[in-house]
Amino acid sequence: MKRVAILGASGYAGGELVKLIDAHPDMEIFHLGAHSKQGRTLESVHPHLPGGERVLGSNDPADIADVDIAFLALPHGASAEPAMELLAAGIKVVDLGSDLRLDSPVRYQAAYGEPHPYPEQLGTWPYGIPELFGKELVGTDRAAAPGCYPTSALLGLGPLYAAGLIEPERIIVDSVSGVSGAGREAKESLMYGAVDEGVAAYAILTHRHRPEIEQGLGALGAPEPEVIFTPHLVPMQRGILSTCYATGTKDADQASVVAVLENAYAPAPFMSVVASSPNTRWVSGSNRALLTARYDERTGSVLVVVAIDNLLKGAAGQAVQCANLMLEYPEAAGLPMAGWMP
Amino acid sequence: MKRVAILGASGYAGGELVKLIDAHPDMEIFHLGAHSKQGRTLESVHPHLPGGERVLGSNDPADIADVDIAFLALPHGASAEPAMELLAAGIKVVDLGSDLRLDSPVRYQAAYGEPHPYPEQLGTWPYGIPELFGKELVGTDRAAAPGCYPTSALLGLGPLYAAGLIEPERIIVDSVSGVSGAGREAKESLMYGAVDEGVAAYAILTHRHRPEIEQGLGALGAPEPEVIFTPHLVPMQRGILSTCYATGTKDADQASVVAVLENAYAPAPFMSVVASSPNTRWVSGSNRALLTARYDERTGSVLVVVAIDNLLKGAAGQAVQCANLMLEYPEAAGLPMAGWMP
Amino acid sequence: MKRVAILGASGYAGGELVKLIDAHPDMEIFHLGAHSKQGRTLESVHPHLPGGERVLGSNDPADIADVDIAFLALPHGASAEPAMELLAAGIKVVDLGSDLRLDSPVRYQAAYGEPHPYPEQLGTWPYGIPELFGKELVGTDRAAAPGCYPTSALLGLGPLYAAGLIEPERIIVDSVSGVSGAGREAKESLMYGAVDEGVAAYAILTHRHRPEIEQGLGALGAPEPEVIFTPHLVPMQRGILSTCYATGTKDADQASVVAVLENAYAPAPFMSVVASSPNTRWVSGSNRALLTARYDERTGSVLVVVAIDNLLKGAAGQAVQCANLMLEYPEAAGLPMAGWMP
Amino acid sequence: MKRVAILGASGYAGGELVKLIDAHPDMEIFHLGAHSKQGRTLESVHPHLPGGERVLGSNDPADIADVDIAFLALPHGASAEPAMELLAAGIKVVDLGSDLRLDSPVRYQAAYGEPHPYPEQLGTWPYGIPELFGKELVGTDRAAAPGCYPTSALLGLGPLYAAGLIEPERIIVDSVSGVSGAGREAKESLMYGAVDEGVAAYAILTHRHRPEIEQGLGALGAPEPEVIFTPHLVPMQRGILSTCYATGTKDADQASVVAVLENAYAPAPFMSVVASSPNTRWVSGSNRALLTARYDERTGSVLVVVAIDNLLKGAAGQAVQCANLMLEYPEAAGLPMAGWMP
Repeated sequence: MKRVAILGASGYAGGELVKLIDAHPDMEIFHLGAHSKQGRTLESVHPHLPGGERVLGSNDPADIADVDIAFLALPHGASAEPAMELLAAGIKVVDLGSDLRLDSPVRYQAAYGEPHPYPEQLGTWPYGIPELFGKELVGTDRAAAPGCYPTSALLGLGPLYAAGLIEPERIIVDSVSGVSGAGREAKESLMYGAVDEGVAAYAILTHRHRPEIEQGLGALGAPEPEVIFTPHLVPMQRGILSTCYATGTKDADQASVVAVLENAYAPAPFMSVVASSPNTRWVSGSNRALLTARYDERTGSVLVVVAIDNLLKGAAGQAVQCANLMLEYPEAAGLPMAGWMP
Repeated sequence: MKRVAILGASGYAGGELVKLIDAHPDMEIFHLGAHSKQGRTLESVHPHLPGGERVLGSNDPADIADVDIAFLALPHGASAEPAMELLAAGIKVVDLGSDLRLDSPVRYQAAYGEPHPYPEQLGTWPYGIPELFGKELVGTDRAAAPGCYPTSALLGLGPLYAAGLIEPERIIVDSVSGVSGAGREAKESLMYGAVDEGVAAYAILTHRHRPEIEQGLGALGAPEPEVIFTPHLVPMQRGILSTCYATGTKDADQASVVAVLENAYAPAPFMSVVASSPNTRWVSGSNRALLTARYDERTGSVLVVVAIDNLLKGAAGQAVQCANLMLEYPEAAGLPMAGWMP
Repeated sequence: MKRVAILGASGYAGGELVKLIDAHPDMEIFHLGAHSKQGRTLESVHPHLPGGERVLGSNDPADIADVDIAFLALPHGASAEPAMELLAAGIKVVDLGSDLRLDSPVRYQAAYGEPHPYPEQLGTWPYGIPELFGKELVGTDRAAAPGCYPTSALLGLGPLYAAGLIEPERIIVDSVSGVSGAGREAKESLMYGAVDEGVAAYAILTHRHRPEIEQGLGALGAPEPEVIFTPHLVPMQRGILSTCYATGTKDADQASVVAVLENAYAPAPFMSVVASSPNTRWVSGSNRALLTARYDERTGSVLVVVAIDNLLKGAAGQAVQCANLMLEYPEAAGLPMAGWMP
Repeated sequence: MKRVAILGASGYAGGELVKLIDAHPDMEIFHLGAHSKQGRTLESVHPHLPGGERVLGSNDPADIADVDIAFLALPHGASAEPAMELLAAGIKVVDLGSDLRLDSPVRYQAAYGEPHPYPEQLGTWPYGIPELFGKELVGTDRAAAPGCYPTSALLGLGPLYAAGLIEPERIIVDSVSGVSGAGREAKESLMYGAVDEGVAAYAILTHRHRPEIEQGLGALGAPEPEVIFTPHLVPMQRGILSTCYATGTKDADQASVVAVLENAYAPAPFMSVVASSPNTRWVSGSNRALLTARYDERTGSVLVVVAIDNLLKGAAGQAVQCANLMLEYPEAAGLPMAGWMP
């Protein structure tokens, strides 16, 4: 039984981590950290969780002792420093934030507009999509859990790019996401009255997950491709559906596209290739990813549609999946296979 | 490991039963029955569930062999006959339908406008709210799982009526429910366009759950009280919130009302008395019921607000809770304590 | 053509006022005031409205000149003072806030926990439900537009109480409301993730609209009755449905209850008595109120279910309806009769 | 005052037509037709509309006399024949269906898999997007109102293709739509429980609006381009957001792309080019279309995001806009400029 700390336990991903670790056969929570909600009971922050009498402690690594692994569900920019401290104390770290995902100071600076505080760390953290980069995660002491959008895009396009079935030019990732991806902090733009019954794109051409998608594809094939990424917010709580478009190479046809995906994911417990578009509802509440693919004879294009739960396969679930590999447990241990409907 | 059949597995409650039994440590599914969807795969009917390659068989008891217990999630009027056949074959039965809940032919005829096919059965089925009638359920071969609205009302008012804190006259149960309570069959009134962004009452003074509430309270105290029940449909999928109003007796005050509820539910794993109104979200996805109570000095009234997940504590979860008692397993075995948020 | 100022134009009710006055045949906007959003364009605040290039000015009455009438859509406590100043400047005032609705310093202190700044004003402002108190509004220079919940409750119960068909003891008003009633300011409790897919009661026994309902019924019949009021928040944007319960007097039966309501509202352009429960969707976007009534022979109780759009008949629409009477225009001038579906 | 018939008045687009014509200064309803709901009152079908005592007649042109113009809101395949009969009787026709939009028997057969009953009609009906094809609509006796998705795509891409700023190869139109676009007929896939909280693509590569988009662009530029169209259903009632991707030509840059759109729509009362992504909420309830455009220097691509209300600018509103031109009224007569928020 490994001992676990969760920093940022008061947010949406933090709440999912609490729920997952509480249900995990081989992990146990020993520390829950929070920032502004430090000192509050879990019940007051996550009233849907049992064990609500537990009290949130601090996010300070100095307050954490005797744990084996820590999950960091902290805002951008807040995880690099505690990650260094925890590793130095011999505690394994899964960072759910974006601080340690990118592979070079140049890419980081371009994406975030500022230098990285620990530039030498960039490129040394295994990127936590077990289905694509699982070998790098086994037994390691650190993992950078990917962004929710990159998870969906890379699961859909990664094997096709690795197999040489799609061209690197002008790959389009058009994604829609439920609102929980934007976090729990009160903002006028995320009020029920602002979100309900409307859809909009945001961060057109400027979203920071675009470089992460390009980097991920570039790690699976060459050259590093050129991606256009457009996220949209839709009035639902959970779920990402990414519709991805690429130009097929001469080897692409309907059979090859489907075969590559099916072969790539045959051993993957959470992946299924399905015949028609998945609905995000089919995976909400589970760690599964469903995808469907098409080769369009008319235009020579390849389409892949991928559905995940942004808080599970796109965040907390995948983080636990990484931890399972890091701790050499079965990859699916403690992770939900069944979703929630209706 | 007990062997389980689920009839009516294609509906919403049926899907929840599949999910719960799949996760149960001591039960295993051996038969899934359906009516119009017989022959289809589970995946095509419940795409959110793993094991989707399982095929739905028939709802005919003659097709079921070698199971220990059967859950009947069938439409009104369709469960009495198969229940008799299954019991005759030595199979325990939990009926989620309304056929066997009422305690006399007269009450049944008044509620449903027609005579009961097995009038001698009425009154012989334990009524399946373990927190209130649990002793009658232990080791028995049958249980009538209650309606979703009566579950919420009886959990809120039952201990107060048993303790003599509320008067029997003009008890009001004003409930709001998510849409899943109305079932899965396609109807214009349940289309997204009809339900979204609107609220209405329905079946004012005529809903069939009113006699069930009166009967349940009458089993806990005397005389049988007089209830006004108004259900409303709200644009959400799951959850019932019942706001109950009664006149307090001379023994009622804030302290006595809360104490009676807290004492009644102290040993109950799924019950919590909370300080302010529960939100149905806090229990969605779990088998829990949360309630809060007030004594109004101005009017001498008692208010209780109760939240449940209509498909779990109000249907499939409570049915499994009953089965646990019938099979002499721990009451909470296999049942979810954590809900889903966001 | 009367010249209009709207203070608090950046909120939800303010936006509805802009839309209504823009469409009014006899009124024209000359001043839009805002507090923290002063200086912004209308488009940036209400992107759904045409004429978005208009700039929001201040909420200070000193900045308003040459208007005939002002609508005050300001937070509680912020309207009494500007109302006095505007009246002093010869400008008619419709206050949508709660500052000037209650009729005595004692009632105000009990409801709001503090003394009123202009106690002599209390009781001098006509209460703006035209269907019940219309005569007092014709030609006057001021009106206190009612709260959204009291509007629904008083429209449902007022004529019955005036006609002596319901008893004054223990009248219950159980209401559900869309989220827009809670305003536009960012709060964690009003985020999409907090509101969606859940229902809860709030302010049980303590909501400030309860005294307003009691006062309104007391103005129509005697003695002033005793009301229990329970509001609930449901996941939709607009609409209030109030389900009201009272004990019938000896004159009450199904025929008398319906007849009193139909007669009371025969001349009222926005009122309709319907056969089954109205859905709030049927009135969303319109200034109409729909209601249905039942006499329950079993318990001698009277039930009334009333549906309104909280931002129109419950706020901005009714305010314009009051203004129409104050300015001696036709009562329905410029007000929408058709709702929005789907 | 022109006399109007509406066939298919019981559907969603039909209801919007009733509302629009009731509010139109120069048109008046003289006949409402329905199929299975013939004989019912308008109130029973559209409870949100005033004048609910009006009775729905038949959809048979033989039952219609003395009207000037007819709107046909009928299912696919049902409008060609009545359109012919009405024209023969001297009645102008706006067909909201898909029967008469395509320009050749070959294209029709390819899209719909069957021959057209009146092949000689194809290509003779002006295509009803006034902003792009308005000159062809003035004074004519017929118009084929476009599909909702093609309206959004053509408004976004049409001027750019006409101006030679985008290439014809592999234009991608990725659209999300509210549920009302799927009609009002009861289907399990459109139930609240099926739609709420989930997103999926549908009709991948096979949707019949793809040829309509290609035809429309081909009418504005050459050669006829090649489009990939992916529609998605999102849990909201109204609104389409189309995110369109094309390869820019050598003349394309941010300034030229925006200038072409702004110039094209400078005289158009319902069109606005905005700085960031529009939200469908901003146009719900209005006949407006909002769009934003980007040139991506990295990839040489052009992006356009367009928001419309699928039932207004995408159906009933645009049909009335066409009728205004056909009857030589001001283009915007009777059409709403303000949307609904919240």
